[in-house]
Amino acid sequence: MAKKYVYFFGAGKAEGSSKMRNLLGGKGCDLAEMTNLKIPVPPGFTITTEVCTFYYANKKKYPRELRDQVNRALAKVEKTMGARFGDPRNPLLLSVRSGARVSMPGMMDTILNLGLNERTVQGLIERSGDARFAYDSYRRFVQMYSDVVLGVHRDLMEELITERKKEKGLKLDIELSAEDWKELVEKFKALVKKESGNDFPEDPKKQLWGAIGAVFESWDTPRAITYRQLNKIPEDWGTAVNVQTMVFGNMGGESATGVAFTRDPATGEKFFFGEFLPNAQGEDVVAGIRTPQPIGKERKADPGLLSMEEMLPKPYGELVKIYQRLEKHFKDMQDIEFTIQQGRLWMLQTRSGKRTAFAALRIAVEMVGEKLIDKRTAISRIDPDSLNQLLAPVFDPQAKAQAIAGGKFLAKGLNAGPGAACGMAVFNPERAMELAKAGKKSVLIRIETSPEDIHGMNAAEGILTSRGGMTSHAALVARGMGKPCVVGCTALNINYGSGTMEVNGRVIREGDFISIDGTTGEVIEGQLPTSSSEIIQVLIEKKIRPEDSPIYQQFVKLMSWADEIADLGVRTNADTPRDATTARLFGATGIGLCRTEHMFFEAERIAAVREMILADTPEERRRALAKILPMQKMDFIGIFRAMDGYPVIIRTLDPPLHEFLPHTDQEIEELASQMGVSFNKLKERAESLKEANPMLGHRGCRLGISHPEITEMQARAIFEAACDAAKEGVKVIPEVMIPLVGHVNELRAQREIVDRVAREVMAETGMKIRYLAGTMIELPRAAITADQIAQVAQFFSYGTNDLTQTVFGLSRDDAGKFLPFYREKGILDSDPFVSIDRPGVGEVIRIGVEKGRRANPILEVGICGEHGGDPSSVEFCHLTGLDYVSCSPYRVSIARLAAARAAIAYPRKKKR
Amino acid sequence: MAKKYVYFFGAGKAEGSSKMRNLLGGKGCDLAEMTNLKIPVPPGFTITTEVCTFYYANKKKYPRELRDQVNRALAKVEKTMGARFGDPRNPLLLSVRSGARVSMPGMMDTILNLGLNERTVQGLIERSGDARFAYDSYRRFVQMYSDVVLGVHRDLMEELITERKKEKGLKLDIELSAEDWKELVEKFKALVKKESGNDFPEDPKKQLWGAIGAVFESWDTPRAITYRQLNKIPEDWGTAVNVQTMVFGNMGGESATGVAFTRDPATGEKFFFGEFLPNAQGEDVVAGIRTPQPIGKERKADPGLLSMEEMLPKPYGELVKIYQRLEKHFKDMQDIEFTIQQGRLWMLQTRSGKRTAFAALRIAVEMVGEKLIDKRTAISRIDPDSLNQLLAPVFDPQAKAQAIAGGKFLAKGLNAGPGAACGMAVFNPERAMELAKAGKKSVLIRIETSPEDIHGMNAAEGILTSRGGMTSHAALVARGMGKPCVVGCTALNINYGSGTMEVNGRVIREGDFISIDGTTGEVIEGQLPTSSSEIIQVLIEKKIRPEDSPIYQQFVKLMSWADEIADLGVRTNADTPRDATTARLFGATGIGLCRTEHMFFEAERIAAVREMILADTPEERRRALAKILPMQKMDFIGIFRAMDGYPVIIRTLDPPLHEFLPHTDQEIEELASQMGVSFNKLKERAESLKEANPMLGHRGCRLGISHPEITEMQARAIFEAACDAAKEGVKVIPEVMIPLVGHVNELRAQREIVDRVAREVMAETGMKIRYLAGTMIELPRAAITADQIAQVAQFFSYGTNDLTQTVFGLSRDDAGKFLPFYREKGILDSDPFVSIDRPGVGEVIRIGVEKGRRANPILEVGICGEHGGDPSSVEFCHLTGLDYVSCSPYRVSIARLAAARAAIAYPRKKKR
Repeated sequence: MAKKYVYFFGAGKAEGSSKMRNLLGGKGCDLAEMTNLKIPVPPGFTITTEVCTFYYANKKKYPRELRDQVNRALAKVEKTMGARFGDPRNPLLLSVRSGARVSMPGMMDTILNLGLNERTVQGLIERSGDARFAYDSYRRFVQMYSDVVLGVHRDLMEELITERKKEKGLKLDIELSAEDWKELVEKFKALVKKESGNDFPEDPKKQLWGAIGAVFESWDTPRAITYRQLNKIPEDWGTAVNVQTMVFGNMGGESATGVAFTRDPATGEKFFFGEFLPNAQGEDVVAGIRTPQPIGKERKADPGLLSMEEMLPKPYGELVKIYQRLEKHFKDMQDIEFTIQQGRLWMLQTRSGKRTAFAALRIAVEMVGEKLIDKRTAISRIDPDSLNQLLAPVFDPQAKAQAIAGGKFLAKGLNAGPGAACGMAVFNPERAMELAKAGKKSVLIRIETSPEDIHGMNAAEGILTSRGGMTSHAALVARGMGKPCVVGCTALNINYGSGTMEVNGRVIREGDFISIDGTTGEVIEGQLPTSSSEIIQVLIEKKIRPEDSPIYQQFVKLMSWADEIADLGVRTNADTPRDATTARLFGATGIGLCRTEHMFFEAERIAAVREMILADTPEERRRALAKILPMQKMDFIGIFRAMDGYPVIIRTLDPPLHEFLPHTDQEIEELASQMGVSFNKLKERAESLKEANPMLGHRGCRLGISHPEITEMQARAIFEAACDAAKEGVKVIPEVMIPLVGHVNELRAQREIVDRVAREVMAETGMKIRYLAGTMIELPRAAITADQIAQVAQFFSYGTNDLTQTVFGLSRDDAGKFLPFYREKGILDSDPFVSIDRPGVGEVIRIGVEKGRRANPILEVGICGEHGGDPSSVEFCHLTGLDYVSCSPYRVSIARLAAARAAIAYPRKKKR
Repeated sequence: MAKKYVYFFGAGKAEGSSKMRNLLGGKGCDLAEMTNLKIPVPPGFTITTEVCTFYYANKKKYPRELRDQVNRALAKVEKTMGARFGDPRNPLLLSVRSGARVSMPGMMDTILNLGLNERTVQGLIERSGDARFAYDSYRRFVQMYSDVVLGVHRDLMEELITERKKEKGLKLDIELSAEDWKELVEKFKALVKKESGNDFPEDPKKQLWGAIGAVFESWDTPRAITYRQLNKIPEDWGTAVNVQTMVFGNMGGESATGVAFTRDPATGEKFFFGEFLPNAQGEDVVAGIRTPQPIGKERKADPGLLSMEEMLPKPYGELVKIYQRLEKHFKDMQDIEFTIQQGRLWMLQTRSGKRTAFAALRIAVEMVGEKLIDKRTAISRIDPDSLNQLLAPVFDPQAKAQAIAGGKFLAKGLNAGPGAACGMAVFNPERAMELAKAGKKSVLIRIETSPEDIHGMNAAEGILTSRGGMTSHAALVARGMGKPCVVGCTALNINYGSGTMEVNGRVIREGDFISIDGTTGEVIEGQLPTSSSEIIQVLIEKKIRPEDSPIYQQFVKLMSWADEIADLGVRTNADTPRDATTARLFGATGIGLCRTEHMFFEAERIAAVREMILADTPEERRRALAKILPMQKMDFIGIFRAMDGYPVIIRTLDPPLHEFLPHTDQEIEELASQMGVSFNKLKERAESLKEANPMLGHRGCRLGISHPEITEMQARAIFEAACDAAKEGVKVIPEVMIPLVGHVNELRAQREIVDRVAREVMAETGMKIRYLAGTMIELPRAAITADQIAQVAQFFSYGTNDLTQTVFGLSRDDAGKFLPFYREKGILDSDPFVSIDRPGVGEVIRIGVEKGRRANPILEVGICGEHGGDPSSVEFCHLTGLDYVSCSPYRVSIARLAAARAAIAYPRKKKR
């Protein structure tokens, strides 16, 4: 039997189905599926993707059987429609479209009205009774076909149209008459002859094969190839070709065309929502010349407009039944397109509808309630990253549009932290804190930020920088704080000295109001009204009662389902009791990373820290550390209280000490007089701490090894805090984490100190605290020798930020100078600092997990880099068998959802 | 049958042999072996290492059978000697010594004269006829035993001796009489009673068991434990105990004691060489009070001294026969100890003798000639690193000793580059070049060196720095150039401004003469005479004819044997034709790394390089590059000529561009006016190129990807040079290497450029050049994804310097601040920048080789880091199946020898 290359659909029966996506492509299988559902679909046929593969494998020849199969399918279409292809009296007209397995830009889109020629156009005039419509259709076909199939550029034909309008003193295409179009068609054809040397094909069959060939050729255009490379779509997937009967919504008063959503795509409300135009074609809706009318008579925005329900009640009734069936069948909100040709309803397309995050949440949760889908499907329907939309503060959309229309738009940067922020422009963190104390809102504007700016960032409503990328310090910290943030806005010229910023000729001064939209990257002059998201108002701000917020209840429900399904736990990266409390409200079940150094920057502490750094002997250093101890201890007590019953991983000091010292001579001068040491001594110490490559320098456990007294102090603060909190009745589960271990002996040396201090404190307090001691795995050597390290570590936590830097040999701070070239030239598909690079960094992680668990089967393994809040990375962590991910508080919900989705997509054999 | 714990030796027959090293320890098995050779060895027995293991496994108890076996062995000794242990008339006296498998400091050394007590000392007086000798022996025993076994500190007893001498107005111990010693013994015993609460044991058996116990206890001292940890000696190896009859060389005129070498340990000449003292004990030789006399009558240094050959001809004759048998048996030059007791010769020890590198070479080569050993054994006898001694320039030893005695010693630093250098102190590289042009020698003194200093380093005789370690820039470059170098000499206070250096109060000014010994790290004031090593004078300087230099001929012979045996090839890292020529003379069979950037620093080139960096557009950059092209091309032609017939790997530009720009405002000012650009532009560009972590920044292939025109120019220079050289008849084998690849797409993008330019140049010249294109593997990601990269690379070259930095997350430039703590605390056994860290970096290399070869079986794999010249790393490369190592020219011989030794130790299944 000959191989089947062509699949017919029509008259309530299709040879294909939605299960044949690989063979028929996305569009082809959806058309087949609708047909089988007895939904009226203009009949047609699909030429399979295998023909495409054959075509390229055989020097652009088709399989021998193809012509015959196409002819037979075409005959069936003719029979179904009662019209014939090329018939001058009752011509069948066709559309030809590409259709790969996945939607793919760069491929040929559509050729409409195929089959028209000098003779068949007469039939169309007759059948429609509208010569202008017929010639307009004809000229559109000739234009499209010439451009796409014959390679005559569309602009050349547009020039002819413009010329014509000029001659007749007209402005708009719609003002041209049937005669005008008729003559233009002739001119187009002459142009084709001149440009290509060939006549425009009059034979409809020749037209058809030309269009089919053009679809297959479009698989191999440079743009399509690049897209496939970037998206890892195999070359041999190929595309299908869909050939379908044309229907017309502009054949008089009983004709119409429209689009609809089965539920409200903005809110998710279960309400049939759509627009239509009577006596019009799809293109007219897009052209925006006529005002579309509502579909249903309920809830009209403009009561003056007639609805389709009122104007065309019969087709409306059919449409309602069809949309209900489609939603039930596809079990999702559908975005549908239809045409009514002379009273007869035709469905042209159905697909899952795009929707806002709010709608996605409501639809998913309500569909579970309706028993249309199960919880797992609901989870799979929500893109974890879209939760950001639910949590971010928002601008009033109308106010924003007005401001932009009023010329207040300043510049666009990278949308690094979603949400809206508005406040007075300030250029230094101290000023932001002063304003906050005075109850005033500010936006902190910096060239780039550093750890000293954190309190100012916290005090500001939002952060705006002129340098840095999506993973710059500003971006990371802002996302961690849930603050709106726009970074890398290169149009800004910031001058700290004068406290001003120049943007495209305009000058913003300190105190001027400015608004930033971290969801879009827009920077707008002036004050735009904002508010917290409703969920934040319920959850964090407690301004709305939970029972008054359906969206909050839906959110909570979805999250509880996610937790039922997920294998991975979700902890948080939190350095303060406040962050820990926030993260608990978002559902974090522990702290995966508490960075002790962030506590060091507070004004009253930094002095003692600097004293410690400047100490000449271990004894002096101990005295300075003794001043820090009670402060660190208080922090830890607060964190233990917030995390009552949940594990808390505390990392010992990590950054190089020079980060705590000032750098300019002036700052050194000031500090020296404050501390009562000589300028020279301070300067010298600052110089001696400078490093060629601080990222690879004297930091992490290397500090604790050269200065064991630091580790001692920190261990003491941890265990004294744990004992104090436990005395209050708090259930404390401390886990002490040693950073930047590369060799098991480093961990061994540091662990000895931790264990000794733990014993000492327990003996002093008479308490018994169970704790774990472990390490961060953030250097390749640690992962490669994980079998040795796991014999000394009770847990591993992958520090994927530094691990990515070392595995790639790539400094995050410097990559901005060349990574853009990498993205541009397609060398890297995605930013490895955003999503874990699976073949490289991921493989190193996998080796470490495997070796570590083999050596220590009860090893607890997690991840605490910024990747912990990235859905693709969470999936990787699930696949690699980790126990948990840890991320910033505002990404905890995202990680919980991503973990559940990963568990659904890739069920684990055994729960850990 | 009871387990055998005690092995007797004596009377020409031993129960053990040299094959039982694990059981009997080193000393025990050598004594057994000598006994079996019928060589007169004082009889005795060895208690096995298994007893030690048993002792620690069983709460410090001995095996039940031990006491009996010791008693029986002791009885055999008594029978052999005709004396009885504890016999007051004819007492047998014993020595007790430890003896592990490998010599180990921290273990108990020796207890002599065991068996003496108040009664047996009388027997010794009788037998020796010398009361003073007997009491002196007695007191020595009591002192040693009290200190080692009973824990009474030796100092307390020395105080008693000093007191006695004072009382009697004497100065030296030897002036004390028999009576004095007798009384002192009593005082010692009283002291023991007082200090330990116990009587000194009179019973010889009790003494013996005390001494045996002390040996086993000494296995577990902190010093021994630390030594084992550092040297990875397993705890359960244990130590043996050797109990042996005492013999005395001080029993009158027919007695003597001596040491000898079977060949000259300084020159290796086959000449029996030794010293003896008549009527003396071993200790007397060490004490240095009496002048030892020569053993043979030939070649006396002092003709006035009588030789043993003349004084004791019969024992001398026996000794000659014995040394010849020992050398023949052990097939190596022996270091022997003997004692003649009343005319009877006893051999106390034989072992392989320590020797200079010159002697080692001569002995090994001559022994092959004598058919005593084969070539493989000869190779195994030479420590590859010791070849440095053969190649390094030397100070006249007497002149140096005189200078030090005369107070000219200034300081000691790290011995970073072996050899002697002397010249005028200069503090900047330009001055060194000026002096060199004027025919004057200089020593370049810098705080630390940077790439701009290279020409000055080359012009100077030697390099001295106050900062940096064994792998600092100065050390690496100096070793590469074969220059003497002392680094990290922290006592120096260098002041560039005044052109002076202060050392411990003394001031050295520019132009003052200074001498550095890079073999020892010594820095000496003034001018010491030096000369090149003889091999360099033959090989490089051509000052001596090969036929006039036996040492050169031995060297060449050994190297040719090494090449026959080695599996690994040895290439060189060479950036200039001169280096390439030198490396060929040392036997390099190709270039493993030619760094193109070193060529950029030459005075006439740096201007064009800077112009290229400051270019604003690719076109400007191309214009600047066009100026560099002919210069690079000339370099490459020179290198291809020098490497005629051998492969040459040329690496495209690697360092970050800021390395080529000046840094201080003054330098920028100067350069700006030179180049005719504004100070501000230059300053701004220099600022914008600054990086937080340059090691992980915009360098390597990242430069070639952002600026493809650089790669284009370099590829063109390579292929034009190759074509030109080939036209001359040179056989060129270029291999183009792309550095710092982390992702296969980086290599793919760069390789496209290289292949395209190669095609263009070949088309232009009409030549056909076979070449390879490959990559450096110096980032963890490259090794981890080697399967992908090997599909695009024709060769891999491991850049182990950067790979070590990234795998460890360790900046070599910054590690000096904390790595010393690591060595001190035993966290790292060795410097990973010197020897490849096998469990970490080595494992990453192994993964890369395995994945790479699996994907591309004909992949050529080598290593070009500094490790290529380190013997342990060469062994690793052999084990990992690499094709070659590449190292600096002056280490090529070392690598060749190390490769041969690795092939001998670990034969490969299959030659590649």
